[in-house]
Amino acid sequence: MSNKSKTKRFILPEEEIPKQWYNIQAEMPNKPLPPIHPGTKQPLKPEDLYPIFAEELCRQELNQTDPWIDIPEEVREHYKYYRSTPLVRAYALEKALGTPAHIYFKNESVSPMGSHKLNSAIPQAYYCKKEGVTNITTETGAGQWGASLAYAARMFGLESAVYQVKISYEQKPYRKSIMETFGAQVTPSPSMSTKAGKAILTATPNHQGSLGTAISEAVELAQTTPNCKYTLGSVLSHVSLHQTVIGLEAEKQMAMAGEYPDVVIACFGGGSNFGGLAFPFMRHNFTGEKKTRFIAAEPSSCPKLTRGKFMYDFGDEAGYTPLLPMFTLGHNFRPANIHAGGLRYHGAGVIVSQLLKDGLMEAVDIPQLESFEAGTLFAQTEGIIPAPESSHAIAAVIREALECKKTGEEKVILFNLSGHGLIDMGSYDKFLAGDLQNYEVTDKEINDNLSQIK
Amino acid sequence: MSNKSKTKRFILPEEEIPKQWYNIQAEMPNKPLPPIHPGTKQPLKPEDLYPIFAEELCRQELNQTDPWIDIPEEVREHYKYYRSTPLVRAYALEKALGTPAHIYFKNESVSPMGSHKLNSAIPQAYYCKKEGVTNITTETGAGQWGASLAYAARMFGLESAVYQVKISYEQKPYRKSIMETFGAQVTPSPSMSTKAGKAILTATPNHQGSLGTAISEAVELAQTTPNCKYTLGSVLSHVSLHQTVIGLEAEKQMAMAGEYPDVVIACFGGGSNFGGLAFPFMRHNFTGEKKTRFIAAEPSSCPKLTRGKFMYDFGDEAGYTPLLPMFTLGHNFRPANIHAGGLRYHGAGVIVSQLLKDGLMEAVDIPQLESFEAGTLFAQTEGIIPAPESSHAIAAVIREALECKKTGEEKVILFNLSGHGLIDMGSYDKFLAGDLQNYEVTDKEINDNLSQIK
Repeated sequence: MSNKSKTKRFILPEEEIPKQWYNIQAEMPNKPLPPIHPGTKQPLKPEDLYPIFAEELCRQELNQTDPWIDIPEEVREHYKYYRSTPLVRAYALEKALGTPAHIYFKNESVSPMGSHKLNSAIPQAYYCKKEGVTNITTETGAGQWGASLAYAARMFGLESAVYQVKISYEQKPYRKSIMETFGAQVTPSPSMSTKAGKAILTATPNHQGSLGTAISEAVELAQTTPNCKYTLGSVLSHVSLHQTVIGLEAEKQMAMAGEYPDVVIACFGGGSNFGGLAFPFMRHNFTGEKKTRFIAAEPSSCPKLTRGKFMYDFGDEAGYTPLLPMFTLGHNFRPANIHAGGLRYHGAGVIVSQLLKDGLMEAVDIPQLESFEAGTLFAQTEGIIPAPESSHAIAAVIREALECKKTGEEKVILFNLSGHGLIDMGSYDKFLAGDLQNYEVTDKEINDNLSQIK
Repeated sequence: MSNKSKTKRFILPEEEIPKQWYNIQAEMPNKPLPPIHPGTKQPLKPEDLYPIFAEELCRQELNQTDPWIDIPEEVREHYKYYRSTPLVRAYALEKALGTPAHIYFKNESVSPMGSHKLNSAIPQAYYCKKEGVTNITTETGAGQWGASLAYAARMFGLESAVYQVKISYEQKPYRKSIMETFGAQVTPSPSMSTKAGKAILTATPNHQGSLGTAISEAVELAQTTPNCKYTLGSVLSHVSLHQTVIGLEAEKQMAMAGEYPDVVIACFGGGSNFGGLAFPFMRHNFTGEKKTRFIAAEPSSCPKLTRGKFMYDFGDEAGYTPLLPMFTLGHNFRPANIHAGGLRYHGAGVIVSQLLKDGLMEAVDIPQLESFEAGTLFAQTEGIIPAPESSHAIAAVIREALECKKTGEEKVILFNLSGHGLIDMGSYDKFLAGDLQNYEVTDKEINDNLSQIK
């Protein structure tokens, strides 16, 4: 059969949109270590998180017993606005690479906000609304998460306030406009509107911002505002839980294509798009039924998985969050101003950290220029301009596919196209003009940072 | 049955993507008058157009006999990259309006370039490639068409050059970057690179550009470059022909929803997204089987359908094109700098002009502020930020839906969401800040313009 008559895109009927999320915590060989309350030094209980997050989210966060969690009907109704997202066979990319590998991608970029982030923004806003919350806050890097949270807040009639990492606020002005169109209040971070922001700006004038800083500001705003909760776009286990809708759909769609992935790849910032795609497939590795490889692709300039240390650290710069057992570069690590703003985070979620420690997944680091080369090739073959974040996954896919070309193996590679890059064209402009560069991180820089953690 | 369990999105399986386009010219009660060769004053023959367009496109342009034209298999393969696009029931918009109407939209914004324009860019590039052309040129307003043409050129290995209306080039810089990512050469128009551009800039320094001007430049470049053809994103009959893939899919999808539209609405620049959605449904009106109303929504600042004159006029500012029988404001009409760049064209395609003259369709004009109000309401209910062009259709839908609210009629309204507005956020910024305005066109202005046409 020639390529010509083969199906390119696989889409599920609405009734096949998952009715439950997959909670990998319940089935991991070794459970993640508990988060620690920074005051009491005791393992965190869901109640400890109630002042910050919606209560149901706190319970999901620490749930290590139920492998399946029901998706509320109202959430599923909002998933129907854009799901299922297509699973696509990248025939043209395969051809350009001359690889025998079969490359598939899950196209989360077709969501109305352009990325996978809505998958968790919707349930987070839903649970807040259900519990009587009226205002929600969050941080955002490139703005994919902030835009999604603003959208979800609007859909459930909540007020929203977003702290956007300053460098991204300036690099990607349209994302601010998108958030404002949905009624969100957007502030570049660090700002003078919080104690955390003031302290950081006083210590480091011209601070360009980081996700860690923006988290501190958003948490502080939630804690100092009546009837307000904080929401987070990645890192936490409940966020990855919501994102498993990606992998659960992909599993059914791969079956429609008559294949099963040998390799699953996603870019890595805090872990939610990686976990969202990988975890549902990983459960078949746990049972021994499958032997899929799972690869997280992180930027070389923020290499917590490949060069960070597994230890307890804060999730934010100011130290407002619980202590999390994770691979980290230190919560005060200041990543270079790469254009993949969503990957500029110092740590990894606790589930992924445990899985990596246990050798159940792998990680690779991708230099900025390689990511843009990969993204441009993908655009010119598959027609979709990827988000700079997603281009890290594509670069890792290309490495694997070229390896298959050498060995002649017909591996099935699946990756997550977590978002499109239409709002990131300023970055492509700079790349095409030759104005982008790679950033090196020295061992000394990492060690100095980590040695400051008590 | 409650809304909750109702299907929201209807998507066709790949094998249901149309295999033929619908050529309305063959079945219209009155055929369009022939285009006239400006030199000989004789009706145009396909051969007269061969120097400018791919030959197959010239034959399609003037084909008044075959109601169905086969879609080449290679074109259909490229349609599979993003088609079928979803048909969506806008439950949330209905609820916000409190209307008994059923509102559906065809979501062309999920195409990788964000609009319907790819539907014609792909076949135009395909026919050029097939006939041995190596370079293609075009004009673009907001950049939706230019981006699509650049994409299609890349997919078929052609070089592309795009003249972008200067005001849009400045308002929407990301679109230039998208075109360049696909390898296109982009020039703001009017430019000093053509005779037409030089003449216009000499006569009117600081000319902000118009589609008519950009067309002159692109046609001139094609005529002065070896092995190069010109392509057009709207107005011409073969462009509307390709776009009928929208309406043909929608017809099948409406059947999946168990409904048939009482009213079909689309925004109107040159007519291709309107014709693409409307023509396939219109054929059932021709047979007397259905009585659907068809409404074109144009901007009040460029009102050729509602206030223009039906006459022979040039398609471009410099007078390079054939004389076309159309509703026009005069080829030297200079529309206000509204943010719906794709609707700033002085005339209407010959098919739509004849249909309007014959009372087989209607037109309404929408002020700029009403379009942005409509677009914002749509974003806040249905979650998709519409292109400013598409917002004109939404405004017309809202008028109809509110009329249904008064009369209590459960009309079925279908419209084309021709594109998303993620690259147009600068315009939303200005709207939210209260910096946009309406533009009036006086009768004197229109009459003075038309009186200059010989």
